[in-house]
Amino acid sequence: MAQLRIALAQTNPAVGDLAANTAKLVEWTRHAADRGAHLAVFTEMFLTGYPVEDLVLRSSFVEASVAAVETAARRLAEEGLGEIPVVVGYVDRARLAPRVGQPKGAPLDAAALLHRGRVVVKTAKHHLPNYGVFDEYRYFVRGDRMPVFRLHGVDVAIAVCEDLWQDGGPVAVAAEAGAGLLVVPNASPYERGKDDARLELVSRRAREAGCVLAYANQVGGQDELVFDGDSIIVSASGELIARAAQFAEELLVADLELPEARHDGAAPSEVDAGDGTVITVERVELSSSPLEPYDPQPPAVAAHLDDTAEVYSALVLSVRDYVAKNGFQSVILGLSGGIDSALTATIASDAIGPDRVHVVLMPSQYSSEHSLGDANELVERQGVKARIVPISDIVTAFDKELALTGLAAENLQARVRGTILMGLSNQHGHLVLTTGNKSELATGYSTLYGDSAGGFAPIKDVPKTLVWKLSRWRNEQVGVSSPFLHDFPVPPIPENSIEKEPSAELRPDQRDTDSLPEYDILDRLLDDYVEKDMGSAELVAAGHDPELVARVIRLVDVAEYKRRQYPPGPKITPKNFGRDRRLPITNRWRENPS
Amino acid sequence: MAQLRIALAQTNPAVGDLAANTAKLVEWTRHAADRGAHLAVFTEMFLTGYPVEDLVLRSSFVEASVAAVETAARRLAEEGLGEIPVVVGYVDRARLAPRVGQPKGAPLDAAALLHRGRVVVKTAKHHLPNYGVFDEYRYFVRGDRMPVFRLHGVDVAIAVCEDLWQDGGPVAVAAEAGAGLLVVPNASPYERGKDDARLELVSRRAREAGCVLAYANQVGGQDELVFDGDSIIVSASGELIARAAQFAEELLVADLELPEARHDGAAPSEVDAGDGTVITVERVELSSSPLEPYDPQPPAVAAHLDDTAEVYSALVLSVRDYVAKNGFQSVILGLSGGIDSALTATIASDAIGPDRVHVVLMPSQYSSEHSLGDANELVERQGVKARIVPISDIVTAFDKELALTGLAAENLQARVRGTILMGLSNQHGHLVLTTGNKSELATGYSTLYGDSAGGFAPIKDVPKTLVWKLSRWRNEQVGVSSPFLHDFPVPPIPENSIEKEPSAELRPDQRDTDSLPEYDILDRLLDDYVEKDMGSAELVAAGHDPELVARVIRLVDVAEYKRRQYPPGPKITPKNFGRDRRLPITNRWRENPS
Repeated sequence: MAQLRIALAQTNPAVGDLAANTAKLVEWTRHAADRGAHLAVFTEMFLTGYPVEDLVLRSSFVEASVAAVETAARRLAEEGLGEIPVVVGYVDRARLAPRVGQPKGAPLDAAALLHRGRVVVKTAKHHLPNYGVFDEYRYFVRGDRMPVFRLHGVDVAIAVCEDLWQDGGPVAVAAEAGAGLLVVPNASPYERGKDDARLELVSRRAREAGCVLAYANQVGGQDELVFDGDSIIVSASGELIARAAQFAEELLVADLELPEARHDGAAPSEVDAGDGTVITVERVELSSSPLEPYDPQPPAVAAHLDDTAEVYSALVLSVRDYVAKNGFQSVILGLSGGIDSALTATIASDAIGPDRVHVVLMPSQYSSEHSLGDANELVERQGVKARIVPISDIVTAFDKELALTGLAAENLQARVRGTILMGLSNQHGHLVLTTGNKSELATGYSTLYGDSAGGFAPIKDVPKTLVWKLSRWRNEQVGVSSPFLHDFPVPPIPENSIEKEPSAELRPDQRDTDSLPEYDILDRLLDDYVEKDMGSAELVAAGHDPELVARVIRLVDVAEYKRRQYPPGPKITPKNFGRDRRLPITNRWRENPS
Repeated sequence: MAQLRIALAQTNPAVGDLAANTAKLVEWTRHAADRGAHLAVFTEMFLTGYPVEDLVLRSSFVEASVAAVETAARRLAEEGLGEIPVVVGYVDRARLAPRVGQPKGAPLDAAALLHRGRVVVKTAKHHLPNYGVFDEYRYFVRGDRMPVFRLHGVDVAIAVCEDLWQDGGPVAVAAEAGAGLLVVPNASPYERGKDDARLELVSRRAREAGCVLAYANQVGGQDELVFDGDSIIVSASGELIARAAQFAEELLVADLELPEARHDGAAPSEVDAGDGTVITVERVELSSSPLEPYDPQPPAVAAHLDDTAEVYSALVLSVRDYVAKNGFQSVILGLSGGIDSALTATIASDAIGPDRVHVVLMPSQYSSEHSLGDANELVERQGVKARIVPISDIVTAFDKELALTGLAAENLQARVRGTILMGLSNQHGHLVLTTGNKSELATGYSTLYGDSAGGFAPIKDVPKTLVWKLSRWRNEQVGVSSPFLHDFPVPPIPENSIEKEPSAELRPDQRDTDSLPEYDILDRLLDDYVEKDMGSAELVAAGHDPELVARVIRLVDVAEYKRRQYPPGPKITPKNFGRDRRLPITNRWRENPS
């Protein structure tokens, strides 16, 4: 057996900022070197950030990425880090003649091995995901080479992200090529429960490849995606060796016992990938002799968060990164006294500190006393910056001209509030956070350009029942130290905001249940209809009330336009009403209850 | 040679309305029968409408489509139309085991041959487009069968839409199979100049297939897409035989002289498609003997619109269909006296009649006298329904609470106007049309939730210079009879709105050129940057001013968030800021001028 100390750089790149990402590559390679690592692995498309969407169809961008990987190799050597091999993701291009249906410039979701100032070998993702939030047939052509580099007597193969999720391809080829270690750069976004699926997958693929598998994942928020990190190293038999924290940058270092390389040819060989394609194995030798034996360090296995903590951390990190990466210093939101805005304010305080959170209390003639009281109570508990802007006079000014009634009058109040928040945002540079939850968004229980006005929607993927659960959970964390929790001395959310009956307070004595069923019933139905895509017959068969099924399906389908206009927000489910669920707006399809 | 009268049903289906589309299938098959046609061909996914987006991932929808095609076959027979073979597109599914990366339920973009009450044979699109506005790797699995049915002694092959645009595949197989006629259902959206590309393509593929090619295209508006019809029949040597009108429903009937079938085997045969795949040819015989010779009718070749008329027709049709298919009776928009809102109002009048167009004049303290005058002049010329809602008192009511200055104060005025329009929309059920043009949208020269508030954006893909051109052109059409022009007795757009210098009138003496370069310079630069994806070095090399390049690129990139929140509007260029151009919001990539 041969030894190797590997370092997985679970870091948070900035999409499009090649210079900053290159600087980060150097910095983290230095950390790896300081820890005595023999190999450093960064994440998928680390130099460009992920996902870059249509930027990849711009040739100046691809050229900048190709130049960046060469620069990175030189920079590492100039900084005295040339001896440690570095695997890093970036965007390259295939030399293919243009043809209809092939992405312009034939981009590759590439990874390179950098060593001694040079780009030693390149590869690219073989399996392109084109489901959920992924559109990779739009952006990339398929890679068909697998590098296997010999490092201190160990054969190390490289695959990229989706290559693990689909059968056949690089994993099969790694086995065929007799690799002793398979390293995999990833940019795999968070979804509830995905950490369990990921470990199971990585273990299975390690067994298929017959070698140790090191999975390095991105961390951080990027528009509607949150990357959770959770980098993993498993043995050839699929046992967990080391695991990084969730939602935090970490250099995951592990000493591995690996089989000595037996293959002695260095010529490329063509291997049937078992998926109808052929992959060329390209062998490179960096160093052929195993290291002198050394005492391994004990590997780190980070404690894993429970489901509620995991969701809350995802929301906090995504707000923090959206604010920082878009250059905002502060956020602003409307605080009604209700639970949605209370939770949103709390997430914001936990993300960037309460001194950078501005709340506006905008009472109307329909606001109850307890609303203003509960809102003030939150301001006191959290120390956020608050101001009161009563809306009655403004609404009256509109009314004099328009004489709106019913729903139009209700929406007017919400739009006046949206206009106030946007005005203060424009004047003072705060990012507006919207406070709508997923149950509202699903059923269209919101006002276009009213409560949906803003730049980021922290709880847009959180159903109402989970809003309550997260709020109670957050209040229980007083005294717990965590990078995702501000150190409030008291529970930050007023208990009354959690316990009272929800109301939009846009007309006298209004209650959510005037328009919607009880949220526990609604959320179960929405989960079956939206996440599971069940049809009406299936929904009724699953025990949902037939009349309610018909009513809710209609609400959900008609609300598609509103959802399209909603700000992005962190995805925590398979269908967050972002790019992962796209229906036509002009659409006559209606499920008919059986 | 054998004769055949073919009828291409260039029609306008409703997405999701399987019952209405089936009724339309019967109705138009009757028209075809009345015209003595021996074969009727409908468009791609006609029974479901196109595109249906994520509906196709819902099993109840696919099952409904599969049931609909069987029902359609029976209905045709019941209505006495069973003898005429009908080719029609719908959604089917492949019987494939689920696997990662394969669309749920393995849907097919299918076409079926209906005859004598039965679905005789089925096929599905082989080449799946995944670029521009198409996401078909997300939705479909590849078809690998080509039906060739013998009708009155002629072998007729079927391919679907994209199968024509990509090399290899069904066209090559049709040649190999010795087809005498290739029929192709399509749903191919409009873009400027695409009609020329389409004819060239169809001619080339006919020569490759070595047979007559009949191309039936959808017509009508569907969210941001406009299907232009323009169905075509060309000879085996690529000569135009018949061509349908643009933007209008039409039954294109042509008598064809076709080679008699020579192949005598009916067993399926496997053919190398020349694109790395194998396609199974499936032969079916409906009738083996050629028809008795008859006198052919002269084929129709519709006159083609010039470029300006074509764009204008696309805009009018898309507004008309968006209004009708979403169940609106009327539209409302703000009329400023400027050219953008004047053109939008005129398109609306042409689309649904001026009696269903409501305009609101919303003067502020900064509105010039000529603005109100020009707006009133348009109201008079067109007879649209107008009301005046001065905004000063409302703005004052906000000001008392907020004291906004500068850009925040300018945006406030736009948001008050947006709130007024949305209020009137909610109260009276009008669809709000936004009036922003593409030059504004590109550079972010608009207010989020202000002038961008609404349900449909008729000129969002029209650059300012084209706004003027279309306006002048429209004024010249007085007296011309067309389904896209209301019969105004005078030029509908006040000349002063066309000629005067553009201004947003949000502060004293404001002019667009305070913030933006002259529009002829700007539009040329935007075309190169946005449509052609040129990088800054290329832009400078192409002769654009370096400082302007840097400034405009920055404006365009930063405005991505605003564009994401903009309503859909008809696409007339390759990049309409809809699904055809998607950049990250959180994005640090900046082109650096060389």
